[in-house]
Amino acid sequence: MEMNPINKQSDDCDPDRPAHPGVFPSGEAWKSERNPAERRVDFPVSVVLPAGGTGERTGLQTPKQFCSFLGRQLISYTIQAFERVSWIQTIVVVVAKENTDLMTDIIQRFQHRKVRVVPGGSTRHRSICNGVLALGSGQDEEGGSTAERPKVVIIHDAVRPFVEEDFLYKIAMAAKEQGAAGAIRPLVSTVIATTSEGYLDHSLERAKYRASEMPQGFTYDVIHQAYQSCTESDFEFGTECLHLALQYCGTNAKLIEGPPTLWKVTYKRDLAAAESIIKEALSRTACVITGGSAQAVTLAEALQKAVGALEMELDAIPDLMGDNARYLVTEWNFIHVSISGSCLSEVEALLTALEAANRAILHPLVVILVHLSTSDELSISGRMAEPAAITDLASAAKLRNIFVYGVLLQQSKDTDCWERSVLRVAEITSALIRERSSALVGQLLQA
Amino acid sequence: MEMNPINKQSDDCDPDRPAHPGVFPSGEAWKSERNPAERRVDFPVSVVLPAGGTGERTGLQTPKQFCSFLGRQLISYTIQAFERVSWIQTIVVVVAKENTDLMTDIIQRFQHRKVRVVPGGSTRHRSICNGVLALGSGQDEEGGSTAERPKVVIIHDAVRPFVEEDFLYKIAMAAKEQGAAGAIRPLVSTVIATTSEGYLDHSLERAKYRASEMPQGFTYDVIHQAYQSCTESDFEFGTECLHLALQYCGTNAKLIEGPPTLWKVTYKRDLAAAESIIKEALSRTACVITGGSAQAVTLAEALQKAVGALEMELDAIPDLMGDNARYLVTEWNFIHVSISGSCLSEVEALLTALEAANRAILHPLVVILVHLSTSDELSISGRMAEPAAITDLASAAKLRNIFVYGVLLQQSKDTDCWERSVLRVAEITSALIRERSSALVGQLLQA
Repeated sequence: MEMNPINKQSDDCDPDRPAHPGVFPSGEAWKSERNPAERRVDFPVSVVLPAGGTGERTGLQTPKQFCSFLGRQLISYTIQAFERVSWIQTIVVVVAKENTDLMTDIIQRFQHRKVRVVPGGSTRHRSICNGVLALGSGQDEEGGSTAERPKVVIIHDAVRPFVEEDFLYKIAMAAKEQGAAGAIRPLVSTVIATTSEGYLDHSLERAKYRASEMPQGFTYDVIHQAYQSCTESDFEFGTECLHLALQYCGTNAKLIEGPPTLWKVTYKRDLAAAESIIKEALSRTACVITGGSAQAVTLAEALQKAVGALEMELDAIPDLMGDNARYLVTEWNFIHVSISGSCLSEVEALLTALEAANRAILHPLVVILVHLSTSDELSISGRMAEPAAITDLASAAKLRNIFVYGVLLQQSKDTDCWERSVLRVAEITSALIRERSSALVGQLLQA
Repeated sequence: MEMNPINKQSDDCDPDRPAHPGVFPSGEAWKSERNPAERRVDFPVSVVLPAGGTGERTGLQTPKQFCSFLGRQLISYTIQAFERVSWIQTIVVVVAKENTDLMTDIIQRFQHRKVRVVPGGSTRHRSICNGVLALGSGQDEEGGSTAERPKVVIIHDAVRPFVEEDFLYKIAMAAKEQGAAGAIRPLVSTVIATTSEGYLDHSLERAKYRASEMPQGFTYDVIHQAYQSCTESDFEFGTECLHLALQYCGTNAKLIEGPPTLWKVTYKRDLAAAESIIKEALSRTACVITGGSAQAVTLAEALQKAVGALEMELDAIPDLMGDNARYLVTEWNFIHVSISGSCLSEVEALLTALEAANRAILHPLVVILVHLSTSDELSISGRMAEPAAITDLASAAKLRNIFVYGVLLQQSKDTDCWERSVLRVAEITSALIRERSSALVGQLLQA
């Protein structure tokens, strides 16, 4: 998606970009920066994620929470958003019986650690109630004991993957204080009342109303009592937990305005939107490994300048030794520059180090080999020592969710020609990083 | 975006896919099929598209209606949606003064024919009012006379690009009969009333209310009278034309449920969603040109089978002669198969024919050269006669919005090896067609 070039979109004030769309390592450095001591929650908080829907409403065979992008199901992104929050104990995922095996596979494959799976009920409220009761029992499915009973239960939708720690903090604190709290958003459309014949009766004054969104938080006692007291009709037709808390516990929930990223993935187009948000978050930076040679450093500097216009930042480093090893746990994209000759052993070492860091489990990593040929040889096959070996390397790396591509670049003494080539390298690498196309893995592209 | 492979999403019942997302030629064949005589509107209908927003609300420098994807601004997609409807006379686009030149450029570049540009007012209602008055004057900006005064005026948002002819027909007919008509959608969230201190007061019963969306239709007399009668406060703070028609003309609008594709592009993520809908619509089919040789026909048949699993359909034809010339005005993607030797003159002829058909103005066309090498030669450069010539061809075609890529395929007598290669060709061509990446134009990929 391109913005109008004469009037570029500022990224700093884009309200649609989550500050941390699930792409941060859970290292302590990050936590101490993002989560100062005064923002810590000192009471037990757990989460119920109703994911029992079978997708009937939207007419899709796969329920949205189990649709995938970048090789991972939507619900895993949502789980990750809670799992990375240190003060959240347990995430109870409530799924329909027929999806239990699929859910268990997802938990294993993406190494989720805080999750318990609980069978869903016939309606949304029955499913949430099952989740709340499971948190109270202190036992998991196999009868093993789990974490202590939570003070606060956060209820969220499996199909809202971009919830932030800051906002969860606000909901948890307000819920503890007030008994109940919920996210709201301004209404996007005017709400109107219709006559029984389908004509306009009246329209509501937009400013007086809000859309009730997720997450919502409750003290365990309030949500437990609400579900103990409510009627069959509430279980069957009710939509709003906040309403149950008001009706059966006399608790007026505190309402907190949430960011637009809390939107619910409902239609196929929303999956594309979610994918674009993740891809953009993964594509803001890349790390150029130069090997330290003067030519490679010059190329890296030229690339840094060129990708700036493409809204990407490059860090250039000679290698991943010492302090620079940190890129292995923070960076999603690597550009390995080599000059003439083969660079396969260095690339193999990089792939091994990335695999050891165990990060490609959550998102595909991108490694681009930029090969600068200084000879005047014109045959493509001569420019990179072993194209077939690189294709093999890429095929093997793809199985570990690391996407390897190659870019061939011819050194030129003609300044214009050289600048055009560098710009092409910037465009191609930037496109490869943004698209993360699995079909193009192993290709050698020509700058 | 991938769907879960064990549980594939059915495309037939995807409510998020517009039947005709602006990618149809305006040929008579299509009209007679989609627009039978009894669905014709026999009174004059014109459109007002308020596009005066300056993007302040979303904090973006470029207002959403002027953001681009696939090389074209959002508002041009919306204009196209109306322009292709034969019974719509004039589309009045109301833009802020500072965007008049930009709007004029867009109209010229994408060859819009039914559009008049009118300066916007300080609020949405003032802008719509300007548009309505312009339709009544029967004169354009330069004082030239235009089409007759419309019986019905349709008001729509510039940022809802996927409105369908069928739905516009319903709105126009209901507006003529009832004086006013508007699109509604079910509420996606519960609507709640808040206390002045930010606590839950009560929630509305969702079933009794609807979200009011666009398009809306009015007889010229009703919308004209409503704006003549309404107050400064309405002009300043009002949001709903239907409400003005009710209050000042006593007209209870007919409400018609619209499809989910009517949603409003509001956030950056919505642009990605809109882009994905257009890309998907452009990628459902491709035309394979075999030249008629037995080997190429066999390859085309194998590809047809392979891309079926990738949710794409291929038509294989020997050439674009006779009846097959219709593909030049219906197809967005061409796969040109050649066996050994050079095929440049044929490809040049294809590009010339596509350019003559004048369709790449609205969407980028994709042409993929699949080169099947039957020799055992291993050098990449030897497999395709003139890689540099093809790169030059691709650069020239890109300027005319035709994206040319190459795929190299080695014939193999080993069945497994051959099937793997064919599958790779299918994956690569399918990815190239779906992504429509301008950065990868001219690349020769290896299957």
